[in-house]
Amino acid sequence: MNGKNSLCFSSDYMEGAHPAIIRRLTETNMEQSAGYGSDEYSESAREKIRSACNAPGADVFFLTGGTQANAVMIDAILRPYQGVLAAESGHISVHEAGAIEFGGHKVLTLPHENGKISAQEIKDILKSYNTDLNREHMVMPGMVYLTHPTELGALYSLSELKEISKVCRKNKIVLYLDGARLAYAFACPGNDVTLPDIAALCDAFYIGGTKCGALFGEAVVIPKHDMIPHLFTMIKQHGALLAKGRIAGIQFDTLFTDELYFSIGATAIEAADRIRKALTEKGYDLAFSSPTNQIFILLDKEKEKDLSEKVEMGFWENADKDHVIMRIATSWATQREDVDRLIELL
Amino acid sequence: MNGKNSLCFSSDYMEGAHPAIIRRLTETNMEQSAGYGSDEYSESAREKIRSACNAPGADVFFLTGGTQANAVMIDAILRPYQGVLAAESGHISVHEAGAIEFGGHKVLTLPHENGKISAQEIKDILKSYNTDLNREHMVMPGMVYLTHPTELGALYSLSELKEISKVCRKNKIVLYLDGARLAYAFACPGNDVTLPDIAALCDAFYIGGTKCGALFGEAVVIPKHDMIPHLFTMIKQHGALLAKGRIAGIQFDTLFTDELYFSIGATAIEAADRIRKALTEKGYDLAFSSPTNQIFILLDKEKEKDLSEKVEMGFWENADKDHVIMRIATSWATQREDVDRLIELL
Amino acid sequence: MNGKNSLCFSSDYMEGAHPAIIRRLTETNMEQSAGYGSDEYSESAREKIRSACNAPGADVFFLTGGTQANAVMIDAILRPYQGVLAAESGHISVHEAGAIEFGGHKVLTLPHENGKISAQEIKDILKSYNTDLNREHMVMPGMVYLTHPTELGALYSLSELKEISKVCRKNKIVLYLDGARLAYAFACPGNDVTLPDIAALCDAFYIGGTKCGALFGEAVVIPKHDMIPHLFTMIKQHGALLAKGRIAGIQFDTLFTDELYFSIGATAIEAADRIRKALTEKGYDLAFSSPTNQIFILLDKEKEKDLSEKVEMGFWENADKDHVIMRIATSWATQREDVDRLIELL
Amino acid sequence: MNGKNSLCFSSDYMEGAHPAIIRRLTETNMEQSAGYGSDEYSESAREKIRSACNAPGADVFFLTGGTQANAVMIDAILRPYQGVLAAESGHISVHEAGAIEFGGHKVLTLPHENGKISAQEIKDILKSYNTDLNREHMVMPGMVYLTHPTELGALYSLSELKEISKVCRKNKIVLYLDGARLAYAFACPGNDVTLPDIAALCDAFYIGGTKCGALFGEAVVIPKHDMIPHLFTMIKQHGALLAKGRIAGIQFDTLFTDELYFSIGATAIEAADRIRKALTEKGYDLAFSSPTNQIFILLDKEKEKDLSEKVEMGFWENADKDHVIMRIATSWATQREDVDRLIELL
Repeated sequence: MNGKNSLCFSSDYMEGAHPAIIRRLTETNMEQSAGYGSDEYSESAREKIRSACNAPGADVFFLTGGTQANAVMIDAILRPYQGVLAAESGHISVHEAGAIEFGGHKVLTLPHENGKISAQEIKDILKSYNTDLNREHMVMPGMVYLTHPTELGALYSLSELKEISKVCRKNKIVLYLDGARLAYAFACPGNDVTLPDIAALCDAFYIGGTKCGALFGEAVVIPKHDMIPHLFTMIKQHGALLAKGRIAGIQFDTLFTDELYFSIGATAIEAADRIRKALTEKGYDLAFSSPTNQIFILLDKEKEKDLSEKVEMGFWENADKDHVIMRIATSWATQREDVDRLIELL
Repeated sequence: MNGKNSLCFSSDYMEGAHPAIIRRLTETNMEQSAGYGSDEYSESAREKIRSACNAPGADVFFLTGGTQANAVMIDAILRPYQGVLAAESGHISVHEAGAIEFGGHKVLTLPHENGKISAQEIKDILKSYNTDLNREHMVMPGMVYLTHPTELGALYSLSELKEISKVCRKNKIVLYLDGARLAYAFACPGNDVTLPDIAALCDAFYIGGTKCGALFGEAVVIPKHDMIPHLFTMIKQHGALLAKGRIAGIQFDTLFTDELYFSIGATAIEAADRIRKALTEKGYDLAFSSPTNQIFILLDKEKEKDLSEKVEMGFWENADKDHVIMRIATSWATQREDVDRLIELL
Repeated sequence: MNGKNSLCFSSDYMEGAHPAIIRRLTETNMEQSAGYGSDEYSESAREKIRSACNAPGADVFFLTGGTQANAVMIDAILRPYQGVLAAESGHISVHEAGAIEFGGHKVLTLPHENGKISAQEIKDILKSYNTDLNREHMVMPGMVYLTHPTELGALYSLSELKEISKVCRKNKIVLYLDGARLAYAFACPGNDVTLPDIAALCDAFYIGGTKCGALFGEAVVIPKHDMIPHLFTMIKQHGALLAKGRIAGIQFDTLFTDELYFSIGATAIEAADRIRKALTEKGYDLAFSSPTNQIFILLDKEKEKDLSEKVEMGFWENADKDHVIMRIATSWATQREDVDRLIELL
Repeated sequence: MNGKNSLCFSSDYMEGAHPAIIRRLTETNMEQSAGYGSDEYSESAREKIRSACNAPGADVFFLTGGTQANAVMIDAILRPYQGVLAAESGHISVHEAGAIEFGGHKVLTLPHENGKISAQEIKDILKSYNTDLNREHMVMPGMVYLTHPTELGALYSLSELKEISKVCRKNKIVLYLDGARLAYAFACPGNDVTLPDIAALCDAFYIGGTKCGALFGEAVVIPKHDMIPHLFTMIKQHGALLAKGRIAGIQFDTLFTDELYFSIGATAIEAADRIRKALTEKGYDLAFSSPTNQIFILLDKEKEKDLSEKVEMGFWENADKDHVIMRIATSWATQREDVDRLIELL
């Protein structure tokens, strides 16, 4: 793939789509359908998602990517005087090129543990805001942004999520969950958070498709119908409305047929567990504690150079002047032989 | 498709993709590639487009839709004090839900003929601005936005485009062309504007995929390399960056292989010509003069109701309280038998 | 003033403040007060304005200029998917350098008569929007913006204002009135719209100070308390919050003491009436029909050049290639002798 | 002032203006002048400022407040993909209600010492950005924002400022200095940074008026002529253009006559020094090290309550659940007797 070697673990979006998706896109290709998500495939996908979420009244929209989903939802939900609370490591804090600020909102960052923020931190910052006599000169926290799994691969427990939800509801701020890699949480033995839990505890969230078996696409879910009036128009305004909406609809319809979304991550987790075991045995330092499909290795630069000759990893960040954090990501498409080869050369 | 009837001419984005595209997406599906457009398919597509444009140094980016392409490019090119000149009927003026204003820019509208604006109108408004002693309190025109074909199906002639380009260059304002339906222009016998002409005369433009045979996708072309520094980051900031960039790359690579893009519109134009002929013979009023794949019929509301029982057309706009303008669109996917049936029932 | 001549009628903001204002600023200068409008002078001014508006629960904020007031209020009231309806000649449409678009909102323009829009035009555009099947792809009208007097000096009658208010309330859109020159309306014999009328019929408006006797300042009034939560913070966010809020408070407190605001425009109207009479007698063409303190003369360019040698007028706009529209403005500060001199030389 | 007591040290913007300013506003009140800063007083003020800055070609604009000046300048200078580096304690980071994000830009925060950031920190973050392989997905640092004195009262030394300037120029990023309280720096014996130094080392800055003797007003200086084309229009677009521009012009003309701006802070510094000495002698804890006109005291909440019965201080922030940081500010208007009374009751 990169010319240097054929072994590649740099991300979980290197392949196309799950074969079942490609098959259905092919089968339905010459059918005619209405545009902008009003087709029957999109409606079927929405219905299956509502059912999987145990949220029969939910509004569901299909967008094309995670940054887009985050920006649309944050802009649609917040009022101009509000900002969004997120981990310092959050995707919206670091890797969205200022998309949230482009929409006029400040990201108010919190310390994190493996990408997770705690109910206590949220409580503290809200208390600090509420007791600050200068608060009318400051950005009001209006939303909490979580990722599950986090950017660093960690998972919230159900009890942590419940606590955070409780704080948000008590303080009347919106809880939003970015589920870019949600399928990998659901495939993880240590995860105890279900889709109905998320729908019950969050005010809005998205179910990731791009990294979980689709060509592209994220399903935004708003459990309470019409919580965001005219969201369709705001999606259009963000340039996020697909003309051929069914292309996303068919993909999510497939992912939510026969519970594919809940099984699609299994291969990735199994592979990641094997790699983690091998890394630990061979004395590598893991930068973050992650039970999901992403593994972050702390390497000195020389070792990194050596290893990168043999396997393509993803650059995460420079740790210090001599060390770098590299990411190994597995996915639904990871091949057993590739994992074998990787383990061998570690 | 709409439950009432199976004959549907409401838009040119009702089917999936040209079969060659679906085929290549299937063939390449399990290959691994780098993300965000840095893969070899995207690079190949870019190279073919540069070649087709006779613009070897051009920057090319693949976005997912027309509103997105327009918003990204206008925001990336204009300075805060500038606005964009467009026909009153322009897509950015009417049907993008305020996407341009969301990015902070005013759309300065001009009168039009079948969606076309003239060099003279542009000259006049620039002169008016330049001689207005209050101009520093006003939005400065910084760009001209054209569509080819226009939203109403009309085509600029090469000489018209040259004149407009000359005015823009003389006044140092950017000329941008929205080619959402460009393939239908190229398939039209009356068109004398080529892709190299557009690349030579415009500062930026996009070659439409969504309505011209792709599942989705628009190829933004900037003939002069690095005219817009950091455009990649601004694309990301707009939530417009595809993680699996190759999905767009493969589509455009296919469209620009064996000149598919230049032949794909022929079926649509032939079908539209037959329908236009039938409409004229049967005494229908056409609302706009269009030689391309869109036909706009002025109907009294009763007639519209009757006709809509038998064929699905697209609502364009209310003409007055008794009349409505309906759109018939053909496409690369239009079936000859469907045209026969349509003509019969007119 | 301009080096060429000492007779100047170019605008109504050429002098400082009404002497009573300067006096009170001087008297109170070394007093200490709390910042950001929480001082007792601001509170007194707010109370007097509430009383003059017959709106005891009104929220009142003091901003520094008209464009700022318009931008803050429009941004604070509209949701992202909404735009504001205004006359094509409206200040927000033409002369605010895109301030409304900078905040993300489209100005949806309507034809006008001397700067006035009609209830019927508003009804028509709302009906057009509501019956447009593509409306979810369009900007929703969320507010009507009026100026009284208009930019061209005209006045709404009470019955016109009532009709417009009725349309807005029926359609649940906000009615906002820009009263930059409101004092000149109140001083005009033909005006039948009172401050309590405006407070009863509009959802928000501002009482102009800058052009009506203050050094600077506009009093934004929202008759219904807390209609706009956190407006203070949004004012700060717009850079529109005065640290020494009392400087505006003292000015409005003075303007609303002994009904100064209702008498301050009389000199201006009397002067304008004399000038209008002279112009008509001498055969000048007036470009717009205005009973207030602004007079717009249509002049051929030669005549304009001659006249501008002797009196400084304000450039309004180029009418055509041979004619220009020039503005003569009177104000609370206009001197009788200057009017005599002007009439003589016409 | 607050009903409880007459001794007030809560801020440096409690009084009106320096008597010389009020006098000149009064003297010139009925003169006529052109609007929007094109009057002769504004021109004279600009000329004096250019001269004081030793920057004969500088562009100078007068705005009404600090948040406004910061927002206008940052929006005018940065490109959409860029953000601004600032101390975590910076005014733009904390107390501008998201004004910078409203304009679309991220504030990238750095750790600080008494509000100061170091050349090394800037170098480090630039290096980190430049070596981050994901940087195109991130906000690019495009400007460094400093305050002098800082929000916490500290001063940069000339050598520190030179180092920072060097880093900025080497990296081609803009250095901007917020001089809201600049007069108090100039009055401080420990300050070795002059106005010509600032003009030589920074690309843009503002000289604070509001807190330094004016009713309101900040003078934005851009040493290199036309570095920001069309800034006038962007000022208008931000609602920041004063119609009666001369009101700001006269104030700055006065402040820069007979070097008033350089002497006006002396009283404040002398008073602050006396208070600091007394606080230290009496065993109070100072929260930050400040040689200028602001003093920050760390108090337990009971002590704070006691003290606030007798003197009004400004709330700064909650330090922890038992302690609060209160601010004592002196100004050009501070009375010696008030300082005596304050010291007595400490």
